Amino acid sequence: MSEPLKGAAVIGQSGGPTAVINQSLVGFIEAAVQAEAITQVLGARHGVQGMMAGDLVDLAAETPEHLEKVARTPAAALGSVRMKPEADDVAQMIKTFKAKNIRYFFYIGGNDTAETAHIVNQVSAQQGYDMRCFHIPKTIDNDLRVTDHCPGFGSAARFVMHAFQGDDRDNRSLRGVKINVVMGRHAGWLTAASVLGRRNETDGPHLVYLPETVFNPEQFLADVAAVHGKYGRCLVAVSEGIHDGSGKPFLQVYAEESGSALAGDTDSHGNVQLSGTGALGDALANLVRGHLGDIRVRADTFGYLQRSFPADASAVDRAEARMVGQAAVAAAIGGEHQSGSIALRRKGGSSYECETFVTPLETVAKHTKDMPENFLLGTNGVADSFLDYALPLVGEFEAMADLHMYPTSSC
Amino acid sequence: MSEPLKGAAVIGQSGGPTAVINQSLVGFIEAAVQAEAITQVLGARHGVQGMMAGDLVDLAAETPEHLEKVARTPAAALGSVRMKPEADDVAQMIKTFKAKNIRYFFYIGGNDTAETAHIVNQVSAQQGYDMRCFHIPKTIDNDLRVTDHCPGFGSAARFVMHAFQGDDRDNRSLRGVKINVVMGRHAGWLTAASVLGRRNETDGPHLVYLPETVFNPEQFLADVAAVHGKYGRCLVAVSEGIHDGSGKPFLQVYAEESGSALAGDTDSHGNVQLSGTGALGDALANLVRGHLGDIRVRADTFGYLQRSFPADASAVDRAEARMVGQAAVAAAIGGEHQSGSIALRRKGGSSYECETFVTPLETVAKHTKDMPENFLLGTNGVADSFLDYALPLVGEFEAMADLHMYPTSSC
Repeated sequence: MSEPLKGAAVIGQSGGPTAVINQSLVGFIEAAVQAEAITQVLGARHGVQGMMAGDLVDLAAETPEHLEKVARTPAAALGSVRMKPEADDVAQMIKTFKAKNIRYFFYIGGNDTAETAHIVNQVSAQQGYDMRCFHIPKTIDNDLRVTDHCPGFGSAARFVMHAFQGDDRDNRSLRGVKINVVMGRHAGWLTAASVLGRRNETDGPHLVYLPETVFNPEQFLADVAAVHGKYGRCLVAVSEGIHDGSGKPFLQVYAEESGSALAGDTDSHGNVQLSGTGALGDALANLVRGHLGDIRVRADTFGYLQRSFPADASAVDRAEARMVGQAAVAAAIGGEHQSGSIALRRKGGSSYECETFVTPLETVAKHTKDMPENFLLGTNGVADSFLDYALPLVGEFEAMADLHMYPTSSC
Repeated sequence: MSEPLKGAAVIGQSGGPTAVINQSLVGFIEAAVQAEAITQVLGARHGVQGMMAGDLVDLAAETPEHLEKVARTPAAALGSVRMKPEADDVAQMIKTFKAKNIRYFFYIGGNDTAETAHIVNQVSAQQGYDMRCFHIPKTIDNDLRVTDHCPGFGSAARFVMHAFQGDDRDNRSLRGVKINVVMGRHAGWLTAASVLGRRNETDGPHLVYLPETVFNPEQFLADVAAVHGKYGRCLVAVSEGIHDGSGKPFLQVYAEESGSALAGDTDSHGNVQLSGTGALGDALANLVRGHLGDIRVRADTFGYLQRSFPADASAVDRAEARMVGQAAVAAAIGGEHQSGSIALRRKGGSSYECETFVTPLETVAKHTKDMPENFLLGTNGVADSFLDYALPLVGEFEAMADLHMYPTSSC
């Protein structure tokens, strides 16, 4: 491996978009066009679909000025795809690779994307076709193993934090119960970010329900009644993935018990659609309405804005997303690794700073990472230790300000 | 009226909050503490409720530094209320005013708020109690008469524009049909703002449905099918107030025809709840799913974030909201007007600039203003003339950027 492998590089984007996924793409392009071993810098449209079909574009022809604008544009500039390639599909991809002498494969995405990179790495090795296969991490869910956190999370967390800051003010103005549903089917990281703008216990969200714990509807109603009794208002953060003791999504439990049809799609595995529908929020609001009677109850589902809002990305997240794209090229041409996933770890020291390292693909592929116990507070809260972890990732923000409500002097 | 009336001033906030409603409050306080005729600067908690109960606070004791922070905090810092006071209620308010020698009444809000100011003005005159009554405009709906536009609209429009810019990128990445429901029961101004970030006809929203026209579900399905057939994707902006030819909300029509229960509340007039529920988006998504078959269909309802998101207010809107608060004090102590509503008009000249003027309360109270015909484009679009009107209100923003998708050279 002393002589670097010479050939073209291809990159694709996969899974749900983020606000900074194109920062990683641009970081990759910047580094790849500088690399002597890389003879062409190619992009595949819609990920593995484009690699199978040979639907490739020339990324080296883009100017640095234009790439800066692309980097600041949310969602996958090359198009994304949700597809786990079968053995035949991978064989088809490798045909494309051979035809174009593609020796470097990069794939930006989450754990499923890392698994695809792992499979491509294995099949090319079986075929004796010398390749370098690297996964570049991305997910607003922040649920990849090994890495300290995932590019894309900081910006989504910042949006969720800001949304709760503002909505808490809204709910103070008109009072009642407000429920906000946040993305995250299996892990509660993004929902937990709802607490990052709180100044004290009067600030919402007052209750936070995560998929790391079992959701008990009776306890939920008792919790809401207690907070509403205390403050005359209650702001609730709910992860879309809340579930019963058997792991069944609450929305499915509710639909079965109430005999109401589910609003959205179910996928081929029978999973109910949790994103792109307001069904869960509406179900919870109905539950509260039935229990607490004549008070104002509203529910919002933040939806795709969490991962695509262009005007509130975290500066730290932008920089780190760029960095992992660059680091993937450095690792691929460095000679030390045949394959791997780029991960982040915090440097020691008083101020926050991260560096990259390479971890084997199989340590990131397939399985995800829940929030650890020490970040949870009972069944309806988030521990302060989570703030230490997450605040550096969202960047600076303004605290909300109350009037002092000074008493009037008698006149 | 040569001798200015001397006495205390009271201010309240009413109706749905905005991101800049506290700018108007702070503009009022800044001007009121300087005014010799005003002996005390009082705030009423939760609007007329606080005025009836004598629940007042001293606003002059706040420091300018702290008020700057309050001004940048969304939603009503004094608390809001949705209440049209009856004759008895107004009599109760005037009791409070007399007890505290309150001679200046200011009320920040929409058309219902202007009506309250109008009633207070009439009743105090009937009682021979000399008062000045002023309405300070505020509404994300932008539906007040007389004024060129409403403080609060620019910031909400900026949020909606950014949300559609980002969501269009998201929908390009994964394709299919995406429907976003925007606030606005009677007027389509805010939904129309969804188009402000479009660069060309391939950018979404591709279809915009406003309450100024009749919503025809069959035409809607045909429109969506045509756009999806052309681009493989379709982004739709829908106002929550879309309705049939008789004015009945589409959500109610859908619920009656499909026999499904409505998710949310109905108010005392039997109006269905349109905000704080995902029901309309889910109904439209189901309709498309049933019609177009096996494609990805998602719906989001932007909800209260549109009016309360703290990190994306329009700079122009912030400044104008501050200005109308200041202008209300100037008008009240100026001697020319006993009462009125502050309105905005554009100055002539090549660059955008607005000035304030006073319009009689009855010209703003009660009725609202729909979008004019020349801002509409058929039954599913927005005319370019709306861009000229609205772009100065949202302020500067970044255009989204595509990769050029250069073809690969053969190798």
